[in-house]
Amino acid sequence: MPESDAEVESESDAEVEASAPPGEGTPEPGTVRPGGRTARVRAAVLRAAGDVLAEHGFAHLDLADVARRAGVGKTTVYRRWGSVTALVAELLRDMAEQSLPRVDTGSALGDLRANAELVQRTLADERQGALFRAVIAAGVCDTHAAAALRHFYEVRVAEWEPCVTAAVARGEFPEGTDAGAVVRAVSAPLYYRMLTTGAAPDPADAHQAARAAVAAAAAGVYAAPR
Amino acid sequence: MPESDAEVESESDAEVEASAPPGEGTPEPGTVRPGGRTARVRAAVLRAAGDVLAEHGFAHLDLADVARRAGVGKTTVYRRWGSVTALVAELLRDMAEQSLPRVDTGSALGDLRANAELVQRTLADERQGALFRAVIAAGVCDTHAAAALRHFYEVRVAEWEPCVTAAVARGEFPEGTDAGAVVRAVSAPLYYRMLTTGAAPDPADAHQAARAAVAAAAAGVYAAPR
Repeated sequence: MPESDAEVESESDAEVEASAPPGEGTPEPGTVRPGGRTARVRAAVLRAAGDVLAEHGFAHLDLADVARRAGVGKTTVYRRWGSVTALVAELLRDMAEQSLPRVDTGSALGDLRANAELVQRTLADERQGALFRAVIAAGVCDTHAAAALRHFYEVRVAEWEPCVTAAVARGEFPEGTDAGAVVRAVSAPLYYRMLTTGAAPDPADAHQAARAAVAAAAAGVYAAPR
Repeated sequence: MPESDAEVESESDAEVEASAPPGEGTPEPGTVRPGGRTARVRAAVLRAAGDVLAEHGFAHLDLADVARRAGVGKTTVYRRWGSVTALVAELLRDMAEQSLPRVDTGSALGDLRANAELVQRTLADERQGALFRAVIAAGVCDTHAAAALRHFYEVRVAEWEPCVTAAVARGEFPEGTDAGAVVRAVSAPLYYRMLTTGAAPDPADAHQAARAAVAAAAAGVYAAPR
């Protein structure tokens, strides 16, 4: 039986699995044909969850509402994710996977400025900024969301650490500079501004954050024993 | 009629006002005998609100629960504060008033290190750290709480700005250094660590934050046009 063209309205995963081509055996849960309906259901549910978080915040995230917005059966969503925190955790894993790759401009200031601009644009974007505020609030309220949030930032920081390692190799920063600390130093003032003033950071904030991180790293602040 | 020694169990503010000594005239609302029962009710309610926020977070803040914990009549709390966000706003005003004064050690690093240590100890304290996470989450969820949070940080940053102004006068930082930006730069990595990892910053984080802010300020990062 060929894959149905029906959109993501099936009432349960059973239907998805029943439509798998014969002879494939029983796949592991969550690995059913990544490009198929399972993947489309996942994408639709994560998009809907992001919309609800951005519009209403973590406190109002409700699986039935997400299912309705995604055009997916409630049973599917409850069986697959089971709780709002599991859904937030998967959304954060998805955001980590889609985190943009680091750039290589040939200088620490160029690279970290690009990183700062990326963070700034994300936080200043209406939907994405609201989504980040919501997942940070979720991390405050819930330990599962906090673990997922921590993982998201570990992935994101690790992606940009080679910019610092390269700067050390070029002699811009001293040996022993903590690459993760420098990358976090770029983001910190932008998040701090958003969370304490409610205002999104602007491009000038991003440039100042990058210049500050570079000046402190060049002065050896992140190479000194803490 | 002399002031009653009864604790803060009165069912309404009317009783408080009725017990005011004769001949004082009618005081403005909120200004009734600051050391008297009104002040005790306020202190008990704010303490209870802080406890609920620290233990359960903003989403579970409930005026009736706060009244019960404070040993104050529900009517008093509803009439005086009216909403949980008004209560959070008053708690943040109270926290701003009680914010510790800046120090003067004679050097930018000494002063900003003292500031960083104060922020670090606050965020690492179990009750206060939980309270700060809760009010930041409240700021994400609610525009009134966001305005109160913004005011809190304006007061706190302004208290420490003279440390930077003095450093400029001593020639440690260039003319035109944005004092508020330097003070915020000290706090930013400590809050960022707490909110993205769920872990409280430690004293080494505080010292690194102060050294980074001083290095960037000395390099003119906060004096350059943004």
